[in-house]
Amino acid sequence: MDNLQKCKANYTALTPLTFLMRAAACYANRTSVIHEGTHFTWAQTYERCCRLAFSLRALNVARNDVVSVLAPNIPAMYEMHFAVPMAGAVLNTINTRLDAKNIATILRHSEAKVFFVDYEYVSKAKDALRLLMDNNNNNNNKGVPKPTTINQQNSTFSLPLVIVIDDINTPTGIRLGELEYEQMVHHGNPNYVPEEIQDEWTPIALNYTSGTTSEPKGVVYSHRGAYLSTLSLILGWEMGSEPVYLWTLPMFHCNGWTFTWGLAARGGTNVCLRTTAARDIYSNIVLHNVTHMCCAPIVFNIILEAKQSEKIDIKLKRNSPVEILTGGAPPPASLLEQIESLGFHVTHAYGLTEATGPALVCEWQKEWNMLPKKEQAQLKARQGVSVLTMAGVDVKNLDTMESVPKDGRTMGEIVLKGSGIMMGYFKDHEATSKAFFGSNNSKGDWFRTGDVGVIHPDGYLEIKDRSKDVIISGGENISSVEVESLLYRHPRVLEAAVVAMPHPRWGESPCAFVSLRKNNNNNNSSKKIDHVTEAEIIAYCRKNLPHFMVPKVVKFMEELPKTSTGKIQKFELRVMAKAFMVSENNVQTKNNINKKSSQVSQNSIVGGYNNEQVLALSRL
Amino acid sequence: MDNLQKCKANYTALTPLTFLMRAAACYANRTSVIHEGTHFTWAQTYERCCRLAFSLRALNVARNDVVSVLAPNIPAMYEMHFAVPMAGAVLNTINTRLDAKNIATILRHSEAKVFFVDYEYVSKAKDALRLLMDNNNNNNNKGVPKPTTINQQNSTFSLPLVIVIDDINTPTGIRLGELEYEQMVHHGNPNYVPEEIQDEWTPIALNYTSGTTSEPKGVVYSHRGAYLSTLSLILGWEMGSEPVYLWTLPMFHCNGWTFTWGLAARGGTNVCLRTTAARDIYSNIVLHNVTHMCCAPIVFNIILEAKQSEKIDIKLKRNSPVEILTGGAPPPASLLEQIESLGFHVTHAYGLTEATGPALVCEWQKEWNMLPKKEQAQLKARQGVSVLTMAGVDVKNLDTMESVPKDGRTMGEIVLKGSGIMMGYFKDHEATSKAFFGSNNSKGDWFRTGDVGVIHPDGYLEIKDRSKDVIISGGENISSVEVESLLYRHPRVLEAAVVAMPHPRWGESPCAFVSLRKNNNNNNSSKKIDHVTEAEIIAYCRKNLPHFMVPKVVKFMEELPKTSTGKIQKFELRVMAKAFMVSENNVQTKNNINKKSSQVSQNSIVGGYNNEQVLALSRL
Repeated sequence: MDNLQKCKANYTALTPLTFLMRAAACYANRTSVIHEGTHFTWAQTYERCCRLAFSLRALNVARNDVVSVLAPNIPAMYEMHFAVPMAGAVLNTINTRLDAKNIATILRHSEAKVFFVDYEYVSKAKDALRLLMDNNNNNNNKGVPKPTTINQQNSTFSLPLVIVIDDINTPTGIRLGELEYEQMVHHGNPNYVPEEIQDEWTPIALNYTSGTTSEPKGVVYSHRGAYLSTLSLILGWEMGSEPVYLWTLPMFHCNGWTFTWGLAARGGTNVCLRTTAARDIYSNIVLHNVTHMCCAPIVFNIILEAKQSEKIDIKLKRNSPVEILTGGAPPPASLLEQIESLGFHVTHAYGLTEATGPALVCEWQKEWNMLPKKEQAQLKARQGVSVLTMAGVDVKNLDTMESVPKDGRTMGEIVLKGSGIMMGYFKDHEATSKAFFGSNNSKGDWFRTGDVGVIHPDGYLEIKDRSKDVIISGGENISSVEVESLLYRHPRVLEAAVVAMPHPRWGESPCAFVSLRKNNNNNNSSKKIDHVTEAEIIAYCRKNLPHFMVPKVVKFMEELPKTSTGKIQKFELRVMAKAFMVSENNVQTKNNINKKSSQVSQNSIVGGYNNEQVLALSRL
Repeated sequence: MDNLQKCKANYTALTPLTFLMRAAACYANRTSVIHEGTHFTWAQTYERCCRLAFSLRALNVARNDVVSVLAPNIPAMYEMHFAVPMAGAVLNTINTRLDAKNIATILRHSEAKVFFVDYEYVSKAKDALRLLMDNNNNNNNKGVPKPTTINQQNSTFSLPLVIVIDDINTPTGIRLGELEYEQMVHHGNPNYVPEEIQDEWTPIALNYTSGTTSEPKGVVYSHRGAYLSTLSLILGWEMGSEPVYLWTLPMFHCNGWTFTWGLAARGGTNVCLRTTAARDIYSNIVLHNVTHMCCAPIVFNIILEAKQSEKIDIKLKRNSPVEILTGGAPPPASLLEQIESLGFHVTHAYGLTEATGPALVCEWQKEWNMLPKKEQAQLKARQGVSVLTMAGVDVKNLDTMESVPKDGRTMGEIVLKGSGIMMGYFKDHEATSKAFFGSNNSKGDWFRTGDVGVIHPDGYLEIKDRSKDVIISGGENISSVEVESLLYRHPRVLEAAVVAMPHPRWGESPCAFVSLRKNNNNNNSSKKIDHVTEAEIIAYCRKNLPHFMVPKVVKFMEELPKTSTGKIQKFELRVMAKAFMVSENNVQTKNNINKKSSQVSQNSIVGGYNNEQVLALSRL
């Protein structure tokens, strides 16, 4: 049987592009994309993507060239997920909350040939390009990758070609260069035949991790990986046909956890959102009969703490709950109960950029429906079981390479393998080989997540911590996540982070940082609490945790410092915690803390819930 | 980015075996298989498969060896879908309704090393082995493939090693050779590590088509194809988690349309059935709370025409309907209405052995719910849209290689491409190259289904006929299926087949063969009809069809001749039709027909509904 040959009929490259072509054929007249007054069908979306791909080719974009984009969740951003690979190129979606310096770093590292910029971000993009140009001039290409230029007539200049995405409904007329997105679509050839993907092991996307401690790393996805992960997520979340999907998760996060491609696979409708303001979420859910949405847990707060005038009773308008897929910090029971009482149903997932988004989903088991709500929340907060196309998930003691017992207690590092894992880090061989490890005889057996977890007797995984966030106190491992989970269950706590603080006797001790919920919005707390003291929080922890896990110090901040993707910056907190230990009662230190805290508040992109659209999972 | 390397962590072979390993890890304690008093969990099923695979290896079964099995839908049959490839071998499930001669042909052609036989089929297997032996002796290996032997000490003998599968609940003690299935499981090593699939383009299964006109052809599936098709079917049918699946479709049909593997992927429960008697279907549905089943339309009749004492009100026992996936002849509206009123919901699919089962599913569109029932049935009877992992489906004029317009009228041949298409026909290069065709410059672009169809304006495909069954009358193409569909809608017609009959003026004319429904069971016919005449049927057709499509002759038979898989043998009917035209009123001819008909009835395996478990789709 080994002599049976592959041919085009029985061996076609796996690529998400087939999802769009199929949608255009099978669901031609169904609504594909909605954004305010704009509606497209799948036939139209396909045609627009063909036109755009043609125009990119006409601009000399070649196979494996990088096309970067800085845009919110708008139709253009959606279309580029297909149009860019249809031109044979690689899509690089940039986190819109990064500053100009970070953006310049990414453009330089990725050697972007084309840079699409939404009109809202033109000023930031200008700054980034200026930095790039300065860098170019100063360094005279010393140590800077020199991309081949897009415009051959201008061959000494390495900046990407910039194309502005103007507001499709009310054009602003803003132009950075000569080209505009809708013009490119307009002038493209609707009969363009997409570049054939000969080899599914070909890059489709390049996503930079936010990098809390180091330079951002460029994670490369293959067509094969993107295709299989897309199927996994539809299956793992049981997203049926004709879903109406609300874009509350940024598309620049792991390509919207693959749902950019997944909506085409299911012939669903994308409801685009420029911001995730409460009013927009409620009104779009009701107006378009939204069935599904993904988001970071922080969006729960946006939904819950909406003004009365913004809230709409979803249960009155819909027969079945809106399905939410969320990840990162497990939502505490009380929060789950509140959000589900509004007409949502929450599924919890875990993943990371390197795994093309969620790698584990907490699949619900029907028998759990009989358990008390609190137990249900505990089960739901676990990270769950591997998605279907993940070939292996394990928790290992990396010293011995042995799997931990399924006891729900023994911690080890979570490792993954499967075709949904990234091809590697772009131009970073060292980081790539570190990520793909194995025993001495077999390198590259597993991908290291850097997360510490346990396996429960029923086979479900639960994350205990980032390996570098584990606190080792008197030889005992303390999961910072476990302490944080308890803090999150306190009715007054809005955000919590626990880090290691040096301790003369125990080596390390837990130190907690919390921000508090505004009391007036907290309608659901049975008892009105006006003040919370450090002592009260410590007493609360003592009541619910083994003593060695109780934070020795609790600090209140107006807001915790975060990265551009909304991850709490623990390294910054560690610096503060170090200072505490040296002189806990020193006024000078306290002042520094306050100063630092307010400074963080200013620099942070987390200005308030109306600006929260980019806050995502702690790891995704 | 091209220098990013594949490693085990990010490029694992796609194989359905990962579904079982995942199920054993994630759904360890869920029920995997039920058969009468026997219950297994996924952990147990995995362990049993490991043991069996170990025992196969211990018997010197080597990589790519063929392991054949002749068994109904019992746990052993299910387990072999994993255990055989876990030993590195290729599973060949044989249609239990074939006669000894056909079975011998398959064993010889496949060069089977091991032959598992259910105790019920021991006598037939003995006959087949005797034929093989005789053939061996007579031909002295002339023209007969000489398989390497399983037992090296016995190296001149090319018969497969036979292993009987005894009744697990009440052993019969029947032995054909020395070995028995449960013994092999018992003596196997539970810690066996499955053979690693290095290359996903490796055979996993070998399925022989029934071959109405020619020798059976051996269709080879790859691990990749089986894996992707499994995902497609779960997605296309929207089979959620924890399904309870009733085995009313033989597992030997395209490996149960991939649901053998699919149930492991979903962590569902397999309810095995030795026969598809009405009593067993009803009682198992209610007892195990069955959610899903696949079957040929003929099973609808079994369900509908059950005795009153066998029927159970499913609607009383279940909140939601039992999902049925069916294929082949589109169920007429009245039949659909009857079956759905009993608490079932029907989805229609189309496929063929070469496409690993269903390649198209008639995905329901919510807006169709508003249409009248009759229109809904018409829409539901269409073959639909391609499953997700099928990379391309088209209807082409094979002379010009152009796609037909999407007008629902222009006929062409249905062609497919995608990784779910077979690797090829085993040891039949000619048939393989014929199946994979293309224009002169690009061979192997598409797989030819041999079915003639149209594309409707909404992108949904509808099959009009097998290409060889199209009737050409006065230059007009007549779809025999279209005429048959009308005949099936007649309240008295149970079975119908329309073939070409030579006609002196028009070249060909339609000739119809029908068998009638027993009047006493037909509770739903509003009017009691005692006799139906040829003239009445013709008048009925005239009222509903263009005149050139109306059968010139209608013949009544007690039962239509069928192949072992339940396909109506049109070539036999064509021979009869030819005789009609020569002398339609000749008594001699009529007598011949009657003789032929009753002879067919005796030879045919279709003895009555209690024996119908193997009747499947016209093409699947």
